[in-house]
Amino acid sequence: MNTFGRNFRVTTFGESHGVALGAVIDGCPAGLEISTEEIQAELNRRKPGQSAMATPRIEKDQVEILSGIFEGKTIGTPIACIVRNQNQASKDYDFLKEVFRPGHADEGWFYKYEHRDHRGGGRSSGRETLARVIGGTFAKKILAENNATQIIAHVSSLAGVDSCDISHADFDTAEIEKNPVRCGDKKAAEKMIEAVIDAKRKSESVGGEITICIKNCAKYLGTPVFGKIEGELARGIMSCGAVRSFEYGIGSKAKHQVGSMQNKRKEGISGGLTTGDDIIITVSVKPTPSISQKQKANTPNGEISDFVIGGRHDPTIPPRLVPVLESMVAMTLADFLLESPDRMNQVFR
Amino acid sequence: MNTFGRNFRVTTFGESHGVALGAVIDGCPAGLEISTEEIQAELNRRKPGQSAMATPRIEKDQVEILSGIFEGKTIGTPIACIVRNQNQASKDYDFLKEVFRPGHADEGWFYKYEHRDHRGGGRSSGRETLARVIGGTFAKKILAENNATQIIAHVSSLAGVDSCDISHADFDTAEIEKNPVRCGDKKAAEKMIEAVIDAKRKSESVGGEITICIKNCAKYLGTPVFGKIEGELARGIMSCGAVRSFEYGIGSKAKHQVGSMQNKRKEGISGGLTTGDDIIITVSVKPTPSISQKQKANTPNGEISDFVIGGRHDPTIPPRLVPVLESMVAMTLADFLLESPDRMNQVFR
Amino acid sequence: MNTFGRNFRVTTFGESHGVALGAVIDGCPAGLEISTEEIQAELNRRKPGQSAMATPRIEKDQVEILSGIFEGKTIGTPIACIVRNQNQASKDYDFLKEVFRPGHADEGWFYKYEHRDHRGGGRSSGRETLARVIGGTFAKKILAENNATQIIAHVSSLAGVDSCDISHADFDTAEIEKNPVRCGDKKAAEKMIEAVIDAKRKSESVGGEITICIKNCAKYLGTPVFGKIEGELARGIMSCGAVRSFEYGIGSKAKHQVGSMQNKRKEGISGGLTTGDDIIITVSVKPTPSISQKQKANTPNGEISDFVIGGRHDPTIPPRLVPVLESMVAMTLADFLLESPDRMNQVFR
Amino acid sequence: MNTFGRNFRVTTFGESHGVALGAVIDGCPAGLEISTEEIQAELNRRKPGQSAMATPRIEKDQVEILSGIFEGKTIGTPIACIVRNQNQASKDYDFLKEVFRPGHADEGWFYKYEHRDHRGGGRSSGRETLARVIGGTFAKKILAENNATQIIAHVSSLAGVDSCDISHADFDTAEIEKNPVRCGDKKAAEKMIEAVIDAKRKSESVGGEITICIKNCAKYLGTPVFGKIEGELARGIMSCGAVRSFEYGIGSKAKHQVGSMQNKRKEGISGGLTTGDDIIITVSVKPTPSISQKQKANTPNGEISDFVIGGRHDPTIPPRLVPVLESMVAMTLADFLLESPDRMNQVFR
Repeated sequence: MNTFGRNFRVTTFGESHGVALGAVIDGCPAGLEISTEEIQAELNRRKPGQSAMATPRIEKDQVEILSGIFEGKTIGTPIACIVRNQNQASKDYDFLKEVFRPGHADEGWFYKYEHRDHRGGGRSSGRETLARVIGGTFAKKILAENNATQIIAHVSSLAGVDSCDISHADFDTAEIEKNPVRCGDKKAAEKMIEAVIDAKRKSESVGGEITICIKNCAKYLGTPVFGKIEGELARGIMSCGAVRSFEYGIGSKAKHQVGSMQNKRKEGISGGLTTGDDIIITVSVKPTPSISQKQKANTPNGEISDFVIGGRHDPTIPPRLVPVLESMVAMTLADFLLESPDRMNQVFR
Repeated sequence: MNTFGRNFRVTTFGESHGVALGAVIDGCPAGLEISTEEIQAELNRRKPGQSAMATPRIEKDQVEILSGIFEGKTIGTPIACIVRNQNQASKDYDFLKEVFRPGHADEGWFYKYEHRDHRGGGRSSGRETLARVIGGTFAKKILAENNATQIIAHVSSLAGVDSCDISHADFDTAEIEKNPVRCGDKKAAEKMIEAVIDAKRKSESVGGEITICIKNCAKYLGTPVFGKIEGELARGIMSCGAVRSFEYGIGSKAKHQVGSMQNKRKEGISGGLTTGDDIIITVSVKPTPSISQKQKANTPNGEISDFVIGGRHDPTIPPRLVPVLESMVAMTLADFLLESPDRMNQVFR
Repeated sequence: MNTFGRNFRVTTFGESHGVALGAVIDGCPAGLEISTEEIQAELNRRKPGQSAMATPRIEKDQVEILSGIFEGKTIGTPIACIVRNQNQASKDYDFLKEVFRPGHADEGWFYKYEHRDHRGGGRSSGRETLARVIGGTFAKKILAENNATQIIAHVSSLAGVDSCDISHADFDTAEIEKNPVRCGDKKAAEKMIEAVIDAKRKSESVGGEITICIKNCAKYLGTPVFGKIEGELARGIMSCGAVRSFEYGIGSKAKHQVGSMQNKRKEGISGGLTTGDDIIITVSVKPTPSISQKQKANTPNGEISDFVIGGRHDPTIPPRLVPVLESMVAMTLADFLLESPDRMNQVFR
Repeated sequence: MNTFGRNFRVTTFGESHGVALGAVIDGCPAGLEISTEEIQAELNRRKPGQSAMATPRIEKDQVEILSGIFEGKTIGTPIACIVRNQNQASKDYDFLKEVFRPGHADEGWFYKYEHRDHRGGGRSSGRETLARVIGGTFAKKILAENNATQIIAHVSSLAGVDSCDISHADFDTAEIEKNPVRCGDKKAAEKMIEAVIDAKRKSESVGGEITICIKNCAKYLGTPVFGKIEGELARGIMSCGAVRSFEYGIGSKAKHQVGSMQNKRKEGISGGLTTGDDIIITVSVKPTPSISQKQKANTPNGEISDFVIGGRHDPTIPPRLVPVLESMVAMTLADFLLESPDRMNQVFR
């Protein structure tokens, strides 16, 4: 199942060390203005090699549009975009034929499919998410044109450093892209950077948290009862590799609330529908499984072997995950914006 | 969107105070033995009027099977089950024509659809979940026959009382159905009951937490990349009204972990696929929005009015939500158990 | 797969001799006025026992609405309707446990599912189509309100009698419901009735043809390239049991045309989209497989036995199929009327 | 809707004069051996410039595999294939900005989407079907490995010449690829070629008929009641541009049959399921709308203008449609071969 969405449908493809990755976007309305540069700008936010926070693998991640756009605007046909892999260094991964990396998808995928592309995780690599960012760029533009909707995410916790001084929703959006950890709190960002570098020095990786704020969301998005917007948002976000939790509004603190207080809260979602108020989502992310310490690993022949990883890796995931989660949120909302009419008085051509 | 699942498809219908609620289950394989009594037993776990923890509305919630079962076994055709409403007391809800209950779906649904059934929330009522339990009963049986899979949920926190002495996964399954709060920790249960009764006395409602354990799960369920099992589980669970967070495995503590520790953890899901290890899911639930305190409420004509709720309500949601969440998990897993073959050597008739 | 449609979704259930049959309609916009009487009127056109042209099985086919309608109008939630079986005479079908009726679905369904309801074909009975008529009634109303779209079908050939004097599209719509063969040509109807009665006397059954005309169709319905309207119409119509061919516009005569002539033809569909011009569809229907002659039949134990059918049967299918095919066309068109916006300037809430 | 299938899902993209066309195949099981050469061979059967029967546009239609295949075998991930356009000659089509070609999709697509790629029909061009052939190649291999299923199509009528001497099902499969009209009857082929050349000389185009035979089909493919195999086959075939009718088995002659004869007929489909017997499908195809005669044409500003077409065109469609229809049939069957288990005893991992 490599298609996301029912109305705005994004189908992604591509392996970490294959020929190319890409996305086909079907159901995007005609007349949307979009340029290669806009897609590239979003891909650049996700691409590797941006700083010491990310893998040193160098990839330009240059996007090429193959269809669906004519004279700078969509024409209602499927939009195909591809990114060719360049710095594949596949030999770095030869040893992975004989071993399953701890904490990675390698083992399960091997037994499910039996024949696999072992190089850098193949399709289970985080590299797959670049195609999500392509889809997300189109979705963001649709949302922006519809209601000036904005989806802003930042790293609210990293390597044990919480940006706790400020409310999650009050982060400084201008600050986010200025620091390599994508934290909307300058002071916290500095501590986070130090902590990540320190972990890296210890051959360790670290987890973190991303907070997402949806502003100016169109009202009444969501389709009861199995298309409630919170369920769909959760599904999209939890489909990103290292995510371990999804919360919105009061979140996991709900368990300690009383009704009189909770009823006064504006969470941006009610009865499965957006209300137009800001929606705050919080997401926990586990540490990168690839660490350069010696570990024990399972092998295809059922044995356990000592294992020291090669290849190139991120010491932490959240900074590069920010544009990916924004994309999942944008695709989910765009999908519901394009849903069928709700009322007879909307039924016309 | 009132259908859940792609392969095992459950379509639900019915309003709180309409003629009947029900479910149509399509895609259930032929030859599954199941009786009306088994479905009724699950519905009885969810039905109202069980204790002081639940609404005093009396409903027998008697299920009738209309199709799809012949001589005690499924025949591969859609299974329709209905439950007629009895104690509708619709007049209790007449006042709801002119006001939107705080914390309820009333307002959004009114503006989305314009014409609504205001009685007791109509389809946005928690009563809708009885149809999920019907679907869940069939799903649980499929899972039990396949791999003796069990889905066990209990209330791990309620009204501020946490069942913190024991690990979430180590609760006493025999205890759960013995106390009215469905907590797998007898001592905590007693405190929870007291706390709920106390809150009720204060015209208050309380939130809580449910922990779900999946045991003996079939391996490799899930379909990368957009059908990862954690995303699908989250979607199903977050589609239940009062839920505010979904966590699995290390959950929201992921943000404070380091890779060397996390890699050793068995969370039952890896790379979007089940591994066969136990899966622990934690879910936060907000307090019931219906409380008997005086509140401010919006109205269809745009004004704000004083509001004291009538009707009959639960002081807290989690105890009755337990079988519903089990059902959502069961339906999600059954859906993937019935997925297409993954490998050419499985392609046969 | 018992659900038809992506936006306007009709899920049907029920076996010929089970407790009840019915349909759940999901995705119907709120605010559509509809009454039980309107649904009943359409069901009465399809119900058995109308004349010597149809099975003598007596069924009132009384419909009951269970959900989704409040104060005479839809509310945007799923609409469930059921019809209880009354005159089941299941014992007439006991002999079918041990034999597969020639020309019926019995054999294939037995081997596919192994456990089956043998009584009167179970779900493979033509009785299943009553649920399609329920869905069709809602679809017709949506279309009528949108663009005064009309779907009119009649029997254009029966028992070897063609209504050949008039163009297929020029039949007399007022005449159709006046004669028991539902032919829009009075003279042909009389000959058809004679021919059917004659065939019945000879223990024979006869085939026929239905012509469907769609008038005032909304423009540009259809979604290239795999949702072309002609493909979707064909799919719906070919999913009705006895249908053997689907043609539209020039139809099977296309093979003998030249481009200069064909380019001048208005067929109501171009490039997979409706054009607003009338669409003429022609459908061939095989004879009823149940005949009272002695036949050879396969059995579950692999032998061939002599076979004389019991039960009650129609001597010909087309007259009762008319409202069913109208329903399939209506559901197909309604589904596309409710499709996502095609252009950015239609994207609003 | 540019995705075909529920289990074996083929998403196609690309415009006639855009950068590239292609397909993403999702749901193809892992372990299927396939080479670029095999796909190329099928594409070569469809490509332009093969003979005087086809457009002189020269395209190599060279396929490139971007993902999903590793060491010559599928790995269970989406398979992306692209074909770059070469001989685009877009200027030939400049005049199409101001006029809608008669008999083409131009006009409807313009009003539906407003912004369109007018060059050579854009996505409504027959060139779109090359992506279907890519999908079909994979589907054919799955079917061949499963049950040695073969799908063989030939042109059974062209330009008024019927291959009437032989039964439709008895054509000479070795002959088909030997003549440029793809007719399985050598003598008829010669007459067809003459007739097409004659029509071309007269600035005319001609229609025809394709007969498809499915041999060794797996049994019991199809999913009642809305996934009956005949409906799904019809949908796929009718989604190809110029097709006007779909018949199987007795086809449109059903209307003149009697039950005692029809019951003895083996049509390969019964009750919506395949039986394992040969399935014969007959398809009528209209003449190419592009002819070099002067015609009247509508324009975007609502006027009618004289029109003489430029560009390069086929004088007749069926010979190049043969591999496309085979592909649609193959994709439809593969989709059902990969359907969920039908019985509890098939539910295992």
